[in-house]
Amino acid sequence: MASPHPIVQYTSTASWAMIEDKFSPFAKETLANLVSFFEEEIVPARRLAHAQLPADPVQRWQTVIPVIEELKVKAKKRGLWNLFLSKAHYPEHGVPLTNLEYAVMAELLGRGGHIAPQVVNCSAPDTGNMEVLARYGSPEQQKKWLIPLLNGEIRSAFAMTEKGVASSDARNIRTAIRREGDEIVINGHKWWISGAGDPRTKLHIVMGKSDPGNKSAYNQQSVVLVPADAPGVTVVRPMHVMGYDDAPEGHCEIVYNNVRVPLSNLVLGWGKGFEIIQGRLGPGRIHHCMRSIGAASEALDTMLRRVTDPNRKTFGKFLYEHGAVVEEIAKSRADIESARMLVLSAALQIDKYQAKGALKEIGIAKFVVPSLALTVVDRAMQSFGAEGLSQDQDLASMWANLRTLRIADGPDAVHLQQIGQRELKRAPALHKQAEARAKKEDALFSKAGLNKSHL
Amino acid sequence: MASPHPIVQYTSTASWAMIEDKFSPFAKETLANLVSFFEEEIVPARRLAHAQLPADPVQRWQTVIPVIEELKVKAKKRGLWNLFLSKAHYPEHGVPLTNLEYAVMAELLGRGGHIAPQVVNCSAPDTGNMEVLARYGSPEQQKKWLIPLLNGEIRSAFAMTEKGVASSDARNIRTAIRREGDEIVINGHKWWISGAGDPRTKLHIVMGKSDPGNKSAYNQQSVVLVPADAPGVTVVRPMHVMGYDDAPEGHCEIVYNNVRVPLSNLVLGWGKGFEIIQGRLGPGRIHHCMRSIGAASEALDTMLRRVTDPNRKTFGKFLYEHGAVVEEIAKSRADIESARMLVLSAALQIDKYQAKGALKEIGIAKFVVPSLALTVVDRAMQSFGAEGLSQDQDLASMWANLRTLRIADGPDAVHLQQIGQRELKRAPALHKQAEARAKKEDALFSKAGLNKSHL
Amino acid sequence: MASPHPIVQYTSTASWAMIEDKFSPFAKETLANLVSFFEEEIVPARRLAHAQLPADPVQRWQTVIPVIEELKVKAKKRGLWNLFLSKAHYPEHGVPLTNLEYAVMAELLGRGGHIAPQVVNCSAPDTGNMEVLARYGSPEQQKKWLIPLLNGEIRSAFAMTEKGVASSDARNIRTAIRREGDEIVINGHKWWISGAGDPRTKLHIVMGKSDPGNKSAYNQQSVVLVPADAPGVTVVRPMHVMGYDDAPEGHCEIVYNNVRVPLSNLVLGWGKGFEIIQGRLGPGRIHHCMRSIGAASEALDTMLRRVTDPNRKTFGKFLYEHGAVVEEIAKSRADIESARMLVLSAALQIDKYQAKGALKEIGIAKFVVPSLALTVVDRAMQSFGAEGLSQDQDLASMWANLRTLRIADGPDAVHLQQIGQRELKRAPALHKQAEARAKKEDALFSKAGLNKSHL
Amino acid sequence: MASPHPIVQYTSTASWAMIEDKFSPFAKETLANLVSFFEEEIVPARRLAHAQLPADPVQRWQTVIPVIEELKVKAKKRGLWNLFLSKAHYPEHGVPLTNLEYAVMAELLGRGGHIAPQVVNCSAPDTGNMEVLARYGSPEQQKKWLIPLLNGEIRSAFAMTEKGVASSDARNIRTAIRREGDEIVINGHKWWISGAGDPRTKLHIVMGKSDPGNKSAYNQQSVVLVPADAPGVTVVRPMHVMGYDDAPEGHCEIVYNNVRVPLSNLVLGWGKGFEIIQGRLGPGRIHHCMRSIGAASEALDTMLRRVTDPNRKTFGKFLYEHGAVVEEIAKSRADIESARMLVLSAALQIDKYQAKGALKEIGIAKFVVPSLALTVVDRAMQSFGAEGLSQDQDLASMWANLRTLRIADGPDAVHLQQIGQRELKRAPALHKQAEARAKKEDALFSKAGLNKSHL
Repeated sequence: MASPHPIVQYTSTASWAMIEDKFSPFAKETLANLVSFFEEEIVPARRLAHAQLPADPVQRWQTVIPVIEELKVKAKKRGLWNLFLSKAHYPEHGVPLTNLEYAVMAELLGRGGHIAPQVVNCSAPDTGNMEVLARYGSPEQQKKWLIPLLNGEIRSAFAMTEKGVASSDARNIRTAIRREGDEIVINGHKWWISGAGDPRTKLHIVMGKSDPGNKSAYNQQSVVLVPADAPGVTVVRPMHVMGYDDAPEGHCEIVYNNVRVPLSNLVLGWGKGFEIIQGRLGPGRIHHCMRSIGAASEALDTMLRRVTDPNRKTFGKFLYEHGAVVEEIAKSRADIESARMLVLSAALQIDKYQAKGALKEIGIAKFVVPSLALTVVDRAMQSFGAEGLSQDQDLASMWANLRTLRIADGPDAVHLQQIGQRELKRAPALHKQAEARAKKEDALFSKAGLNKSHL
Repeated sequence: MASPHPIVQYTSTASWAMIEDKFSPFAKETLANLVSFFEEEIVPARRLAHAQLPADPVQRWQTVIPVIEELKVKAKKRGLWNLFLSKAHYPEHGVPLTNLEYAVMAELLGRGGHIAPQVVNCSAPDTGNMEVLARYGSPEQQKKWLIPLLNGEIRSAFAMTEKGVASSDARNIRTAIRREGDEIVINGHKWWISGAGDPRTKLHIVMGKSDPGNKSAYNQQSVVLVPADAPGVTVVRPMHVMGYDDAPEGHCEIVYNNVRVPLSNLVLGWGKGFEIIQGRLGPGRIHHCMRSIGAASEALDTMLRRVTDPNRKTFGKFLYEHGAVVEEIAKSRADIESARMLVLSAALQIDKYQAKGALKEIGIAKFVVPSLALTVVDRAMQSFGAEGLSQDQDLASMWANLRTLRIADGPDAVHLQQIGQRELKRAPALHKQAEARAKKEDALFSKAGLNKSHL
Repeated sequence: MASPHPIVQYTSTASWAMIEDKFSPFAKETLANLVSFFEEEIVPARRLAHAQLPADPVQRWQTVIPVIEELKVKAKKRGLWNLFLSKAHYPEHGVPLTNLEYAVMAELLGRGGHIAPQVVNCSAPDTGNMEVLARYGSPEQQKKWLIPLLNGEIRSAFAMTEKGVASSDARNIRTAIRREGDEIVINGHKWWISGAGDPRTKLHIVMGKSDPGNKSAYNQQSVVLVPADAPGVTVVRPMHVMGYDDAPEGHCEIVYNNVRVPLSNLVLGWGKGFEIIQGRLGPGRIHHCMRSIGAASEALDTMLRRVTDPNRKTFGKFLYEHGAVVEEIAKSRADIESARMLVLSAALQIDKYQAKGALKEIGIAKFVVPSLALTVVDRAMQSFGAEGLSQDQDLASMWANLRTLRIADGPDAVHLQQIGQRELKRAPALHKQAEARAKKEDALFSKAGLNKSHL
Repeated sequence: MASPHPIVQYTSTASWAMIEDKFSPFAKETLANLVSFFEEEIVPARRLAHAQLPADPVQRWQTVIPVIEELKVKAKKRGLWNLFLSKAHYPEHGVPLTNLEYAVMAELLGRGGHIAPQVVNCSAPDTGNMEVLARYGSPEQQKKWLIPLLNGEIRSAFAMTEKGVASSDARNIRTAIRREGDEIVINGHKWWISGAGDPRTKLHIVMGKSDPGNKSAYNQQSVVLVPADAPGVTVVRPMHVMGYDDAPEGHCEIVYNNVRVPLSNLVLGWGKGFEIIQGRLGPGRIHHCMRSIGAASEALDTMLRRVTDPNRKTFGKFLYEHGAVVEEIAKSRADIESARMLVLSAALQIDKYQAKGALKEIGIAKFVVPSLALTVVDRAMQSFGAEGLSQDQDLASMWANLRTLRIADGPDAVHLQQIGQRELKRAPALHKQAEARAKKEDALFSKAGLNKSHL
């Protein structure tokens, strides 16, 4: 037997067996390359990145973390760059990797905290923004914003969610986008704009209402490119997630007050806002899910170390010898394995039928995986006692980050509804099938001379 | 796009996409053949089979159900026969199907109640018994028992579990097997012996203790072939499962009182009992799991019909418009999809590394899938109100049958322990990894002139 | 410290402490009397009652079980009779016990299977039927039906649920009740009519539609007393619950075909059907819940015996030393204790404010308790392996019976909706409270010279 | 009907009915007084207290929040002071309230965030520390530390948990306490010492090992009073909980380096450490549980406001009209009601039998309530979307605080084990009962002439 691919240590033999024959030689090689880069370079730098972020409440938002920039240079040199952008969908700028192939990489990156995706230029919201620009941007827009983003020279934000608005229904968006001569004027109040606090962020992609009177609720919105330093753009404050400010990126509250940009900053065309955001969401959700699985796997490994640590014995026993710890570990392993297979099959579905043809699989992954991952991480936290909730372990911030995924890109309830409704659409065919079955059954009973109603 | 394989209507596009390229042309064709046989012949016969079983408490154990025998003839003609027996593992008697390929068929069969596996000669415990005889049986044993079993002419029982004994630890078995001259004498008290009530059952494969003094607890047992009508074999009574007697097969209590068989009825050799039962368990567990997924899928379809039935409206609304029904449907769909991917990957693992190399995947499937399936079926029962618990729907008997799977072939707790313990074995490598990581981290900190302990 | 009341061995010190001062001396004495009768007479007779029921499918519906009738005589002599009928609500026929006092007795009876409530004349559906007759019956009706029921001489059925009708919305009922001269004519098709199979059952209380054109959907129904042997009454078959027929009482399908009764058999008045069934439901639900808690307690005791049984050791350990058994036991204990306190507080609420004033508490108990009890019993079943699902333990039939309680008297979903909607009615007051709080907060901020919006 | 007690608006009619007759007139009056103080004074000050805490990482640990001190003065004037200290157990310093009476007050305080317990001088860890000093302190110790604590002039910390030590087994504690002449010398490394960051904290009650060679593992520890400003006491850093530093109190890491205190600072005597901490834990756990229930109730109210907010409509519907929101609300209400009854019965048990006689009830409450409360708060967070996780709502910090309760004072697993083991002790009596029952059963069978074994 040939020696197995190194990814197997981080995932599992069984899941790899299912997909190995779907990986190109290039993808296998890149994956091996990433495994070694991950273990040799990314993991050791994780806490240093944290240490290089000042505690000072002002400075922490003005800092470019040195070790991250160093790693970006190394990653690019090794060809570990923009792995998320599938050439099949983005022929000009993409890399020759399928969604399935990248999904496995995303899981690995998810083990490395939030620095890992960054150093290979695969971190949200930049990924989705690059997809938008690559798919819908004008040549000029691409030159100005896409290329620097692809090069990792700048970062970007996607400004959709609004304060005081039920934003899981995007039609509720209120930010005003109107034309004035050669300019577009933007007025609005957004929040939870990830990345907007980062000194490297030079671009806001802003969704707003340009034609509120349009009779189609799905043609009232437009998307505009706004330089982060345009007059009238004010970053009010970072929103906290369970006590974390996630500096320097942050999730910011922003006011756009009479912000003016040239007409050429409109993306795709007036009223195309909905079309743009819908194209943006599919693969990104799968990336999130795969990273969640990676995070859960790392949490389980952390828990395994803890419960076998001879220093943590109580009442003469290892932690794993107490109560239901072994069962919890088994359940966590099972949760991770089944979540992975589920999301990999969704990724393959995207490769085969685009995001539009994979809505069912994406939706299921979206409401299943974050909850599973939260459960796994919560078990790990519990195994550490109070330390598990503290800054001395990555588990608490991991949990906080995963918790947002039950809300971001649509709360669980929205996806549950969509999947449930999609199932209900099968009912007419099932009723027909039942009728056909009953007919044949009747015939059999009558042939056998038996009375069906006496059952 | 070519029209998709008909199995997709019963499973899902996404799971099929993952495995399609692993199916041989023969397997695809056989699967299509099975789909049509299932819908045209098996499903319509299900209730007739039930109607052909007398209510009389004596007669029901003496009946060979006509429609099942008719279907067996048809199935054999169509080449839908012994699909479970993989040629790769059983070159002489097997069919050219992998475990993965059969797993998909097993799911479909699981939708058809307990008659479906029978009519294609793939029903437990015959399947495991045929595996035992094919792998360990002498030519004479094979001729006498295996061939009629492979032909569906007789049925068989596997007598392991004992009354009053904690049987999840097979070493506790007490049935005495001893040699007397040219004969083997068997004395013991078994129960939960599936199939032993069936008039077609001609063979009991009996596990017992032949060498209680052997210092290895795993070499004390032997397995012997006992004709069902041998003097001294008494079927005491059927055990009920949640009120069901599962006639005519049943799960019987049996006394072996000085039962004598020729020496040649010993399987494999003295003291080989453990080796035999271990080889028997792997793929069978996966078949059970796949059938469970099929049962759950059928239950979900049944629920979908019910909640969209205009006759079941309450307070002016369809059932699906009430409460959390849509969410429950979505969760059931997600449960089914992830369970299927999990078990398929276990089946593939068996194909690649034999059952021994797939213990982890089999163990996970074993404790995950029955509970998931029970939940799905329970939701469906609830959607039917009291009718869902009654003889007018298949859901209640389905639930009862699934409930046994949390116990049979090892209770959940045993599998949870095994998987958890297996994970714990990864701990030393994880500790080593953590040390290596810490070393690199220290080097980075020191290079950056930062003090790690001040974090 | 005085020696504690004997009930404490079956419930808990803590729950008894909470209610002891609410018990009258008579109630305490009766309870002690019941404890001793339960342990000395009822429990030992349980399996005998089962053995006295013939297996024959016809005879089992024609049998009056001797030991039950013997125990009824003894119970009546000891004053343990009709304990459910609170004098406070039924001054003429009731016993001087509150609902709270009886609730504790109902829990104990719930430990004794379905014979226990019967022998003290406290079993459904007779209890609810006696309440109907005591509250709404004419003197003539009471003489003819109530007195024999109170004396335990006859039994009765309540015929409401209909085949093919979504019966959780009682307005859907179709059975036709019409006046013809001095007679009432009844035509309808009912099922799940508990007790209708019993040879002692002499009365059906039938709910039907007497005025389908009435503009109020709640005044279209009437309730009529129908002798079980009236011409036109046909018991079609017993419905099974998870494989159990619950003979001799059963849950029967019944056809009423031009059944004629005198006008004087109308209860309360034309169009009073809804009023009658609403009055019937409250306390009965609480009795069901308390009996469920008793059943769960008995299951936990059974499990405790099993997991400490030296004959059930596996791998050298008691069952309780494996896996999560100890945790499951702890959770079951906690579930039982909290369920009991919840239901006792609902019972007290009924005593204080009638069933109408306790709808919230009854509704909560209704959707919480059966699920909890099912979980406890399921854990106990699992601890027994296959035996736990069989006729050799009471657990499986206990589970089946509890499972119906998630459906009977309204499925879980209906109660969840009602309680949720009731909570939503608090919203306006909460909005007002929030405004008042904000005003005071503003004043404090302004006094402190701080700007609230900068938070 | 007299107008109900105002507490009913914050708890429920049913729970109040159960305990009202156990409340003294003084307790009822004090409770009404507290309700009005809570609504008029505490709630409006909550956010102001937050605003008065500087963001600056140094200053926030040096601040005495003005509004809290103002409220303390008001509370004391109204007689709302030290409500936790039951006169029955602390005759000299206590207030005439039982644990049950205070439990209801603790629930209300739990609705008011962490300022509420403080302003009535009922906040941990001061409460437990005052109990220690009141029960075990010398007159001199009481004069110096207890009186100022009772007056709310100073605060205190309890230093038990140690870094790198499995502290759920208190015998593992390593901090060295040794006598040197007239002095005690303390060396150790503690963390998670709540309150130690507060400028008002003047006292650390330190648990350490004074006699490591003592053959009883429970007599090796002593407890010593250490002034917070003693030379050698270094507060290293605050530990974070899910990103929160909980300034100014904090949960601090502390080094005791050759700290010297006079011999008279020893509490109770050498080797009495275990006795002291055991006496400290009981009622405090119940207070935590009741506050958790209050927090959950406040979260549910918050959720009710959100889901009925017309500004949060999506797709034309209120949030409560979507998915399973109504069911979740119902479940939260049920969870709260049953948790409350459970904990109240534990509080009553403490009143009757001291903490030692209520270990079962306390243990159950300890592992049940925090998880329930976390679930309720999590549902509320989800209903708010991302805002629910942020600093704009109290829900996220509430969740973080509740999460610690699954760990503090013993992790869930410890309590589950203790309760499970306690249940197992009932097994011998249950086996005996089963034998007695079997004997009577046999007699009945034999009298009836039936053979038991043929069942």
